[in-house]
Formats: sequence, structure tokens, C-alpha cells
Amino acid sequence: MKPIIDRTHDATRTSWVASANDPDTDFPIQNLPFGVFSDPVDDIPRIGVAIGDQILDLTTCVEQGLGDSVFATVDEETLQSLFVFAGNDVADLSPASRRELRHALSDALWADHPDVEENKAILSDFLFDADSLQPELPFEIGDYTDFYASVFHATNVGSMFRPDNPLLPNYKYIPIGYHGRASSIVISGTEIRRPHGQIRPNPDAPPEFAPTRSLDYELEMGIFVSGFNELGKVLTMEEAEARIFGLCLLNDWSARDMQAWEYQPLGPFLAKNFATSISPWVVTAEALAPFRTPAFSRPEGDPAPLAYLDGEFNRNFGGFDVTLEVFLLTERMRKEGLAPFRLSRGGFKDLYWTPAQMLAHHASNGCNLRPGDLLGSGTVSGPEKESRGCLLELTWRGAEPLTLPTGETRKFLETGDEVIFRGFCERDGFRRIGFGECRGIIS
Amino acid sequence: MKPIIDRTHDATRTSWVASANDPDTDFPIQNLPFGVFSDPVDDIPRIGVAIGDQILDLTTCVEQGLGDSVFATVDEETLQSLFVFAGNDVADLSPASRRELRHALSDALWADHPDVEENKAILSDFLFDADSLQPELPFEIGDYTDFYASVFHATNVGSMFRPDNPLLPNYKYIPIGYHGRASSIVISGTEIRRPHGQIRPNPDAPPEFAPTRSLDYELEMGIFVSGFNELGKVLTMEEAEARIFGLCLLNDWSARDMQAWEYQPLGPFLAKNFATSISPWVVTAEALAPFRTPAFSRPEGDPAPLAYLDGEFNRNFGGFDVTLEVFLLTERMRKEGLAPFRLSRGGFKDLYWTPAQMLAHHASNGCNLRPGDLLGSGTVSGPEKESRGCLLELTWRGAEPLTLPTGETRKFLETGDEVIFRGFCERDGFRRIGFGECRGIIS
Repeated sequence: MKPIIDRTHDATRTSWVASANDPDTDFPIQNLPFGVFSDPVDDIPRIGVAIGDQILDLTTCVEQGLGDSVFATVDEETLQSLFVFAGNDVADLSPASRRELRHALSDALWADHPDVEENKAILSDFLFDADSLQPELPFEIGDYTDFYASVFHATNVGSMFRPDNPLLPNYKYIPIGYHGRASSIVISGTEIRRPHGQIRPNPDAPPEFAPTRSLDYELEMGIFVSGFNELGKVLTMEEAEARIFGLCLLNDWSARDMQAWEYQPLGPFLAKNFATSISPWVVTAEALAPFRTPAFSRPEGDPAPLAYLDGEFNRNFGGFDVTLEVFLLTERMRKEGLAPFRLSRGGFKDLYWTPAQMLAHHASNGCNLRPGDLLGSGTVSGPEKESRGCLLELTWRGAEPLTLPTGETRKFLETGDEVIFRGFCERDGFRRIGFGECRGIIS
Repeated sequence: MKPIIDRTHDATRTSWVASANDPDTDFPIQNLPFGVFSDPVDDIPRIGVAIGDQILDLTTCVEQGLGDSVFATVDEETLQSLFVFAGNDVADLSPASRRELRHALSDALWADHPDVEENKAILSDFLFDADSLQPELPFEIGDYTDFYASVFHATNVGSMFRPDNPLLPNYKYIPIGYHGRASSIVISGTEIRRPHGQIRPNPDAPPEFAPTRSLDYELEMGIFVSGFNELGKVLTMEEAEARIFGLCLLNDWSARDMQAWEYQPLGPFLAKNFATSISPWVVTAEALAPFRTPAFSRPEGDPAPLAYLDGEFNRNFGGFDVTLEVFLLTERMRKEGLAPFRLSRGGFKDLYWTPAQMLAHHASNGCNLRPGDLLGSGTVSGPEKESRGCLLELTWRGAEPLTLPTGETRKFLETGDEVIFRGFCERDGFRRIGFGECRGIIS
């Protein structure tokens, strides 16, 4: 088995939506990411795909029956899944149906399709400037689970919080994860308020209740789940792979002082659940097929994954080769008209555990996963200093402040700071695709 | 401020539903707990209240307009909230509206109401034997958070897992909690499958993937949340108190061997999320008013709660005086016709933290809580051995097995074992009210 690469990935394919052919766009016709957005006028959420700087409003198109000729190859159940205010029904489609929809969309937007004039005539009415629409959460997220899959992050953080015991003995056996808060997941652009909480600046004095002094981001990817498994039904690695709907950018905002004081023995809680931001566009597993990469190469001496977390496809293609970048834009930088400053750059393929391993582990006790559930990867850090995915690591808990182009320094985030994540996939012979942005400004 | 005690709590009030006047019933007219159930024939969930051994089907009654005379005092929005398949709209009613509904129900079911004959004529058609209906989850649970509010439990467990450090320094400052899994919450009576997971029977050998050998229950209460607070909006202690919709019984099934291996550093995950059982009936905050009790009396030397977790009402009435019991019925006991054997008996008022403190803490960083969200109290253990709320504590991690009336012994749960929780409130001058049962059998 290999990832399925087909005509929708053909790098020579261009779209009649001109902006999709811009070499810098994140959303060429090879991408076709899934999202939900609303019109500021009627405020009703609909499902759409990004194409260049436009959004194709699939819900309205299909509702009006105008897509019947364009989407003639798509079965009725698949079309019905687009009639809703959140994408959960789409996430419940089979991989085959999702691929069918992708084929139909790619063909309908393709510049050299035999029916291009008809497609254009029909679909142009449902294309809107992305800037004119409000992004919404793509799914009603039933449950959110955050993993801890970067061994570089786990080792760095562990060495700060538990110097004598940085990487715990379970790490190389278990894709460590814990439950997060679904209600406070917000869409990119939502303002992030600095939370209050219990902190203990003086370890010999009682804690105080005050605004966090060490507000941080965590660079993660979100993995949206497709399909159901009933309670008690475990997943093979192959089944887990098929349950990956797609990926987005995810910022697991963290209050480090609150975290240090609260996290034992049951894990982080209020240090995390005040907000989690995600990017509006979910790049589907189908779009990512050309960018699959082997699972992390375990160093000599590391144990092999236990059988339920191992599989041939996973060994060869379990990873996703996504480059991730973090930018910071301070209030002063904005005033001075400066561009966001890149803090780090890392690779999603550097994770110790793959998304399919996270899913298989999650369901290994029979836990039911539902369409639209979200997994966070954990902070994506790499082996080099410039690939550290949070300020805690970049400034080594504030001991080594960063200097910005304005001369400002940062240990942690300050009011007015905007954090911007970007991500993209590149490979010779394929069109570059991107994830758009995940942004959040601290208030 | 004091808890509101009114005519619905009058111990002399009896119902024209005869079984509600049985001295042993959990559901006299003073209780009127909230639940959702379905008819095995049409399988459509509806909202109801338990009265004696009957359920009053409120949804159908109100849908058919037949309750208009009976519920003439109830406003339209409140009635509309009953038209749904889950109770979330009811949980979004104001405390005043919920009280109004309670008054109307109490009067309509009251034996000495001036219009008793008319009420009886209208409502009898909507009364069903509880045994003939299938209980359902009372709410669509958006998020589930499990607390750790018993200092006795925390100290016992801590001394097993961290002998040199049983009670962590944060315990007396923070109502420790962590996120749980919403998808795997099941209704009482659902079979519980023994989960597989990573366990490490030999600490010097690698872990293996196998069925848990130390399956346990945890005696908890569930606290259902009413109303919304927007993201970023914190709650005062008074507001938190008003957000308590009601209480139920909750079994936080736990696989102790999986837990010990996986829980560091981010907390329990697969050791817990294979299933959580709750009782069908939610006893409302209004019904519990006579059974409010002072917050836990902190021993000399313990710190006072920080200001955001302190308040006069909480000090005087923050607790709930609920007696909780755990029973075990093994396969052999069932065959021999024996009654369930009581393993323990404890008091919900022995918790170090009150439900309002849990809610205020949860929202103290701005985390949004939604109607129908569920909080678990954490295992309810008291100071005595007979009030330990799980087998881990009762058998001291298996070191002191229990002997049952059949001569069978138990370190942890075995296949065919049924765990049954019961709970009730008693106070001089008031009618005893109960919580029904939370049951689960191990397969």
C-alpha cells in the first residue's frame, strides 16, 4: 500500500480561478482544503473550499441544486453532507466518498476541463473573496485530545520541570496524550485574553491569584478525525490511518507559571483550557498524499513500537512532511510597519509518533472517536534550537530572552503581541500547498 | 443568603401517584429529578421526571398542548425547552425558571391540590412505568471534567503511587481537576468491557499490551452545569453556585495498571476514558436545598481558600449532605440469589472542595462552561476505612483482598461483577430523597 496519488495532484493542472495559479498561494487547485465560514450579512455558517484567494460556497451551491451538473459524479449522500452548518457529516463520509468529492471539485475548477465554460458559469456565483467572509470552526468538536508527540519538546520541557528525570520511561512506548477542552477552541483571529490563575512566583510563599506572567504559544498541528468507532471497538493501524480527515494549524496557548503549579498529579488544566486557536482550513488527507513520509527514525537502542502501534504503511508513509513556521508581530512592530518576525521553523515529520499511532493508541482501550473530534499533535520541536516550537524552549524558561528587530526583548508573550503560524508542503514534481495561517493577538 | 426552602419541600405533601408515597422510594414528590428516556417502541428520547416508580413524559405532554392548564404558571420559553431530545435547553433556563417549573410539577402531582382531579385526568396519560422505558443520557455533554476533591482519596492514592510525597503542595490551594472524555460517558446499565492497554507487570521488563488486571470503580458524583459564561468571563462564587443544575451518581471506571504506567507527566488518559457511567436521574439543585451543609471544615493549619474560591454562602451551605453507597454483585452471588453486598458507605460532604468551588476554579481563567457540561467530583472517600470509594483504596492496591459473603475474594473487579452505586439525602423534618442507581456489569 502506498498513498494514493492521482490526477488531482498533477502539478500541471491549473484553475480558471486565476489567483489559484499564483505560485505563492497556499491554495492552488491541488489543495482544496475544507472549511466553514459565514457571511457577515446573514451570519449563517456554510461549508466551502479555498481556491486561491477565493472561497467556493459549496453549501449554497448544492442547496440550490446548481451543482448537479458540476458534481454529477458525486453521490447523493455526499452532497447531503454539505447541507449543514458544521462539517461533521462530511467527516463521516467514507474515504472513497471524500476522494470522489475531491475529484469532482478539482475537475470543476480545472482550467482545461472540456466543460470549463459551463463550470465557470455555474460556479462563479458561489465564489467569494476570502477576505469578505468570516471563518468559523470547521466542525462541532465533540472531544479534543492533545498529544505530546515530539521527543525533542518532551526532553526540553522535561529537563526544565524535572531536571533529574527529563524523559519519563513511558515516553518511547506510549504516544502520551491527555484530554483538552473542546468549548474553548477558537478560530484563528480570535483575541486571546491573558488568563488569571494561581501562580507561585516565590516557591516559599503561598500561591497568589493573578494574571499569568509567562504566557506562551505552542506550535502544533491539529488532526481532525473522520468516521465513527463504537465504544469498545479498537482500531488497527490501517483503520486508524483511514480515520485521518485532515490537518490544520493549532496553537495550544499555555500559561507556564500556572502550569508548573497545577499540573501534578493529573496534568495541565487551567494553564491550557483558556483558549486553543486553530486555522480555518483543514488540508485533507487526500491532498497530503504526495507529502507522506516515513515514520520517525528511532535512534539505535530505542524500543520498537508495540505491535498495535506498528504497521508497514506507517513505517513507510506514516509521517507528513509539513514545514511549520512561527512569526511574532509586536504592537511596536505593527506601528513601525515591520513584517512579522520569524521565531522558529520546524518539521512535522520530526514527531516521534505519527497521527495514525495517536489514533490507534487512543482507540486501543475501546474509546470511541467521532467525526469532527480533534487531536493536537503536541508542540512540534525539532533537534535544532531554531526548530523549538514554543517560547518556553526558545528562551529556556525565560533565561535566554529573544531580541526582536525593534530591539524589544521577549521571555514570554506581552499584551499586543500577535503570534502567527504558517505551514506548507513542498516536494519536487508537486505543487506546493499551504495551510494558511493561525493567528492570535494577546489582550 | 440561604438555600431556598419552599412548599415543594414540605414533608407532608403527598402525591396522587401512589408509589411516590412509599417511604422507601427515592422519588417522592419532594424530589422530581430530571432525566431523558426513550420508549423501546419508537426509540425517540424525551424529557421526563421520576415520580415514585413512574416517569412523567413532559416532552409529549407539552408537545400535545395538554399541559397548558396544568403548567399555566410556566412561561413559554421554559415549556419550549422541553421540546428537545436532550436536556441542554432546560439546563440553559435561569434558576428562577427552573424553580417555576418545579413548582408547577409539584403542584400538578400533589394529592391535595384544588384541581387534583383535572391534573390527574390530564397527566395520567403521560405516566409510564419506569421499568418499561430506556434511560438515556440526560444531556449532550459538551465537555466533561473530573475533579479530585476528596483529600482522603488523594492522600490514600498518593501514598501508594508516591509514598514519599502523598499529598502534593498544590492540593489545599487548587481544586485539582483534569479533562475527561465526553464521548465514552454511558448511561447506567451499559455493559463495561474490560479494556486492553499498556501494562507493566514486571517493572524491569518492557510493557505489554494486554487486558487490564486491575479494573476498578470510583465512586463519584456528577455535577451538571447550567447556563453559559462566554469565553473570558470568570464566575464569582455566587455565580458559580447558581450554575449547579443538579447532581447524579457517577462511576469513573479505572484501569489501575494502565494508569500507573501512563499517567506521567500529563495525567490519566486511557486508564479512564474507556467508559464513565452515570445514573439516569439528575437531582436538581432546587430539590437538594434542604440538604445543603457547610463546606468541609479545614483542619487547623490548612490554608484558607484564596478569595476567588471563598464566599459566605459557600462556607455555610456549599456542601451537599448526600450519603453514598457502593454494592457489589458477583456472578456467583446472582446465581445464588444473594443481594448485592455493600462494600462501602461515604458522605459527599466530606469533600475538601465544594461543587461551587470546582465551578469557580474552572472558570477562573475565563474557560467557558456550557449547559449540560459535566463535572465529576473525584472519588468520594471519607476518613474511615469503610468510606473508601474505590477498590484501590479498600484493598490497598490489592494487598488486602476483600472477602464477600460467598467466600469469594476480590482485589479488583472480575468478569461478571456488577457495581451498583446508590445515594440519598436524609434530614430531620424533611422527606428522604434518593438518586436511584448507577449500575455497570463487567464483560
